[in-house]
Amino acid sequence: AFPFNHSCFFFSPGLLQKLSKDSVFFRDGVRRIDFVLSYVDDKDCDKKQERRRIYEANLEKAGLELETEDKSESEDGKTYFVKIHAPWEVLATYADVLKIKVPFKVSDMPDDREMPMNWLSTPFRLPKHIMHPDPDFFTAPFSKSKSDFFLIENQDTFFPPSTRNRIVYYILARCLYVNEDCGDKKGIKRLLNNGSYTAAFPLHDSRYWIKSKYDNCESERHDLYSHWAQFLCFFKEQPINRIRKYYGEKIGIYFAWLGFYTEMLLFAAVVGTICFLYGFLTFDENQWSKEICSEEIGGKIVMCPLCDKKCGFWKLNTTCNSSWQSHLFDNVATVFFAIFMGIWVTLFLEFWKRRQARLEYEWDLVDFEEEQQQLQLRPEYEAKCTKSKQNPITKEMEPYLPVTSKCARSCLSGATVLLWVSILSSDQIQSPSVYHLFFSLSSVLALVPFMLFDQDIYLSSALLCPFRWVMNWWSSRKAQNHPESLYSRWEQDHDLQSFGQLGLFYEYLEMVIQFGFITLFVASFPLAPLLALFNNIIEIRVDAWKLTTQFRRPVAAKAHSIGAWEEILNGMAVLSVVTNAFIVAFTSDMMPRLVYMYAYQPRGEMNMKGYINNSLSVFNISEIPYRSMPDDEENPVYRDYRYPPGHEKEYSHTMQFWHILAAKLAFIIIMEHVVFLVKYFVAWLIPDVPSDVRARVKRERFLVQEYLHNYEVEK
Amino acid sequence: AFPFNHSCFFFSPGLLQKLSKDSVFFRDGVRRIDFVLSYVDDKDCDKKQERRRIYEANLEKAGLELETEDKSESEDGKTYFVKIHAPWEVLATYADVLKIKVPFKVSDMPDDREMPMNWLSTPFRLPKHIMHPDPDFFTAPFSKSKSDFFLIENQDTFFPPSTRNRIVYYILARCLYVNEDCGDKKGIKRLLNNGSYTAAFPLHDSRYWIKSKYDNCESERHDLYSHWAQFLCFFKEQPINRIRKYYGEKIGIYFAWLGFYTEMLLFAAVVGTICFLYGFLTFDENQWSKEICSEEIGGKIVMCPLCDKKCGFWKLNTTCNSSWQSHLFDNVATVFFAIFMGIWVTLFLEFWKRRQARLEYEWDLVDFEEEQQQLQLRPEYEAKCTKSKQNPITKEMEPYLPVTSKCARSCLSGATVLLWVSILSSDQIQSPSVYHLFFSLSSVLALVPFMLFDQDIYLSSALLCPFRWVMNWWSSRKAQNHPESLYSRWEQDHDLQSFGQLGLFYEYLEMVIQFGFITLFVASFPLAPLLALFNNIIEIRVDAWKLTTQFRRPVAAKAHSIGAWEEILNGMAVLSVVTNAFIVAFTSDMMPRLVYMYAYQPRGEMNMKGYINNSLSVFNISEIPYRSMPDDEENPVYRDYRYPPGHEKEYSHTMQFWHILAAKLAFIIIMEHVVFLVKYFVAWLIPDVPSDVRARVKRERFLVQEYLHNYEVEK
Repeated sequence: AFPFNHSCFFFSPGLLQKLSKDSVFFRDGVRRIDFVLSYVDDKDCDKKQERRRIYEANLEKAGLELETEDKSESEDGKTYFVKIHAPWEVLATYADVLKIKVPFKVSDMPDDREMPMNWLSTPFRLPKHIMHPDPDFFTAPFSKSKSDFFLIENQDTFFPPSTRNRIVYYILARCLYVNEDCGDKKGIKRLLNNGSYTAAFPLHDSRYWIKSKYDNCESERHDLYSHWAQFLCFFKEQPINRIRKYYGEKIGIYFAWLGFYTEMLLFAAVVGTICFLYGFLTFDENQWSKEICSEEIGGKIVMCPLCDKKCGFWKLNTTCNSSWQSHLFDNVATVFFAIFMGIWVTLFLEFWKRRQARLEYEWDLVDFEEEQQQLQLRPEYEAKCTKSKQNPITKEMEPYLPVTSKCARSCLSGATVLLWVSILSSDQIQSPSVYHLFFSLSSVLALVPFMLFDQDIYLSSALLCPFRWVMNWWSSRKAQNHPESLYSRWEQDHDLQSFGQLGLFYEYLEMVIQFGFITLFVASFPLAPLLALFNNIIEIRVDAWKLTTQFRRPVAAKAHSIGAWEEILNGMAVLSVVTNAFIVAFTSDMMPRLVYMYAYQPRGEMNMKGYINNSLSVFNISEIPYRSMPDDEENPVYRDYRYPPGHEKEYSHTMQFWHILAAKLAFIIIMEHVVFLVKYFVAWLIPDVPSDVRARVKRERFLVQEYLHNYEVEK
Repeated sequence: AFPFNHSCFFFSPGLLQKLSKDSVFFRDGVRRIDFVLSYVDDKDCDKKQERRRIYEANLEKAGLELETEDKSESEDGKTYFVKIHAPWEVLATYADVLKIKVPFKVSDMPDDREMPMNWLSTPFRLPKHIMHPDPDFFTAPFSKSKSDFFLIENQDTFFPPSTRNRIVYYILARCLYVNEDCGDKKGIKRLLNNGSYTAAFPLHDSRYWIKSKYDNCESERHDLYSHWAQFLCFFKEQPINRIRKYYGEKIGIYFAWLGFYTEMLLFAAVVGTICFLYGFLTFDENQWSKEICSEEIGGKIVMCPLCDKKCGFWKLNTTCNSSWQSHLFDNVATVFFAIFMGIWVTLFLEFWKRRQARLEYEWDLVDFEEEQQQLQLRPEYEAKCTKSKQNPITKEMEPYLPVTSKCARSCLSGATVLLWVSILSSDQIQSPSVYHLFFSLSSVLALVPFMLFDQDIYLSSALLCPFRWVMNWWSSRKAQNHPESLYSRWEQDHDLQSFGQLGLFYEYLEMVIQFGFITLFVASFPLAPLLALFNNIIEIRVDAWKLTTQFRRPVAAKAHSIGAWEEILNGMAVLSVVTNAFIVAFTSDMMPRLVYMYAYQPRGEMNMKGYINNSLSVFNISEIPYRSMPDDEENPVYRDYRYPPGHEKEYSHTMQFWHILAAKLAFIIIMEHVVFLVKYFVAWLIPDVPSDVRARVKRERFLVQEYLHNYEVEK
């Protein structure tokens, strides 16, 4: 399937065009603006001027058409804008070079994904023309020599804007800006770095808050804004095909992933909430809290001070409240939920692989290789390549990135995630079981801001972003008030923020850290998925809003998967089973209670009566010289299983201690083995590529071959 | 790389050819025999005769050439032989249909795999002309229309014999044997089943014990026999390129795998032997055996009877010998070896993947898909397909195998392996620690025949195989004595065993079961890899001998991997870490000893003095009415950690029991986590495809494209 527009090829009358500058066409109203460069003319710097002169001459030599807006036309009276148009000849040549896939026939594959309970999902669906802007096509890599094979209705609109800007960027990235005999200094990136240009960006196709006035323009930005970036759409599906069409596959797949993750979080959140409610409803059966709170038991137990000199003795029933609260997070349901999340995580990753395979098919990325992309959008890559070596495939000299540097870069993302997770939660692992409640609450407190509020809003809000947004808002107000003839399309976009190369990296990082929290430590706080769900529902719309209104349009980039993040998520999924087993065994009070109930209940009954007393050991306070009991009460107690003073093995661990330790370790072993067994069985059971997608891929490949063959034969 | 012969295209003089029947050519001495069918003419069965008549007519219609030997020419005077020759026209047509890859240019990729210490491996190497029978070629799928693009020196020898017999088999498998209007009964398989023919096989190219008399024939069978199937070659590498050339990729990859497995076993065997020797050399430090054997300690301890009524009391020092022996298998080195094998198994599987990727490249299987194979050699597949459905790719009706049946078939192999392993070793898992020695010895006894002797020799020796072999040997003697003019090539092969479809299945199964033994239970018997190594060295040569001398030549089949077996080996590798951890923790005496040494040694010393006494508990024998101590000795003891009679908790577990249990469980957790961590790290570190192979694959793909393009342009 490939985007294919047929709405842009009637020109609006020249008169209208001249009145307004909110247009994506050259002054003649015909040639589309595919890229815009801007610069401020500082008369005294001839060097920059010279570079620009040569560069623009080279661009024109490459076939691009330029149109420069004088600085007098701009708002601040200082900025020049160079508008770039790629004519058919250039597009066709480079589409051939880049092997861009284009449609040659409307797909005749039956779409049999009709759900039986379709009406149920209607409220969550978007209108069909939003979800599927283009019909499904069979595609083949474009070849200039057989251009009549492809479905070219109109040369101006055959390549959609995202493809056009990709091609132009490809040319911009490898055009020289010095004379050929002066070395090979090239690329817009370096020109931006040395200040010859101030910005280079493709244009949004309309203002976001209003449809373009001209029928010949798609106004896709407005569609996205009104059906996707509005917070009130939060319960609707995302128009991912449109996102892909407008922003390219790389951004499209991020939002597809984010949406899928949010959908899957719904199940985890529901089960988590049920587990929490179970703790809530079984409040009454909580024998040990009753004992802690009762005046006769808890009120009479004097505990050892919590610190050496300053802390005093305290009565056990002072922890009455927190003991009730801890029951909410530390009951049988927690164990169940930890196991459930082990399976959930597997299902999430497996079903994502299937979803991704489907997208790969629908977005025509089946044969796409990541390297191709690097070769195509190489400026950053090339800049990082300090050495050059012979390409073993083509035997030509090429710049390349040394392995060490590659390694370092790919380790970076993994290490960053681990660092964040470990810093923010080191307290989780080390907390002794008594303080379980305290630590799970404190970590929740630490998590909430990260979960409820978008982390980069959060971080950048301390910095300059709000300032930029106020400015953006101001300029959009300005634009709304300004007559259209004054505030041009390119100037509006120029005033927006640039979508950096690392933009998606931080978005993914944020989500992966969140994923780490909800999987790695879910046993200590079952409500985490619920909080994450709320966060993500907001996150999707905030990201959408930022992309449509706050950023310049990014150059469309391809990607057929979420890349290295998938590996990281897989690693976390495995790690989470281990951490949760340890959390349940060591930080929760489950195992000591069960061992007490089954083996140490003095009357042999199966209840928890007497558990509190049993779990405490006596300390002879008179052994510490400067401490003594305030009045003639008994010696204070502490939480452990040790022999009392006076016993032959005083203060060494009792049998019950070893019994409980064995139970804890046995629990870890059983839980890990069972969960991993189920996990790998489930993963083996679910094929990575849905069978219908596999069949369609083969069918399409077969048909493409056949059509191409027939075309060649008939020619 | 593709086999390419240039030795067969000078005909020997017609005179010689007529004197001998040990030739692979038609009577004219020119046309090669690619396949032979045989039948016994039973006059009374017209139906069979009619089928043969139609079938052979159809074969000739398909372009094959037939030559029938009258029954009077055969040894028993009853058997007719139909020799089949495929002329160039047929070969070219079907090579195009089957997309068979053929050479078009000698490869110019530099072979830079020159080892620095090359001379060290010289004794293990075979001569270069045996290892690399053909130069390395660039290949492309054959296309009849551009046959001048390929390196065709001589049409008779362009396709090697294995390709020729594959093509002829393809035709045989889909030729009708009834008139077209009588349904679609087709295929040699069904004709064999209903007895119309008695055998169908391609010919070996010479007798194995002697080179073909004629210069025009390769005598590859003889080369294989003399450089591969001789037991005295056991220390040499295998000529896998020749095996592949003669038997096809499927059999080639089996032997490559078997050879690689044997090489890797060498390391495991060396380390295993060292661990065993360590136990041997630390005999003296074995304090507990000394205590068991000493008259003062072991001689005074009276043990409880081992069974209820019949067994008597026994002195501990009667187990003196077996306690010394158990030290050989149950010492610190065992733990080390269990961990080592966890890593070894990972290295084995990872390096095999690399080796397999290299073979895939060298044997030109990179783009080969298993399905292609099924479509090509479909008779068995088709026979299993009871239903037919529309192919979703070509939209044609095709027979197909229902999913349930597919599932059942793929479960079968896994289940069989698990069953065997579990039956043969259920005693291993359940054995209590006291009887560790007994059980490890008994399982060794059970393993030895499986390891030392080839299991299918073993099993089938009880059946009819030796009888067949005697017959084979007899007929080869006969052939050696017979004048060549009487005992023809086809009759010699006809007297051999047929290589069944399941042949390789049982070979793989046997090896996988062996692999299961040496990985799953290695902690109880470190010498297992050594025994397996001996077995495999024999196994390779026995299998080679069987293939070259005892079996008809199989139809060459393709395969680019060892298939589902890889999954099974991976599963075993994971399982083995778990089983070994449990074996070390529960069936070995390691943990109780360490706990005793660190925590229960009465004097706080770090030695094992007093361990034996400590590990025994007293039983009050007078509680059992019909039992009493023979004289006035103390009460007897048993091996456990329980309170003595008279204690308030008599016969319940002591603290030490729980302490030891905790230690055992902790050991399992630590060993599993450490080994799995290292395992997955190592697996992640080692790329599945060697980087030079990856580069070569791409380079070759690039060059093939370029050459093809140039060819098209120049045409």
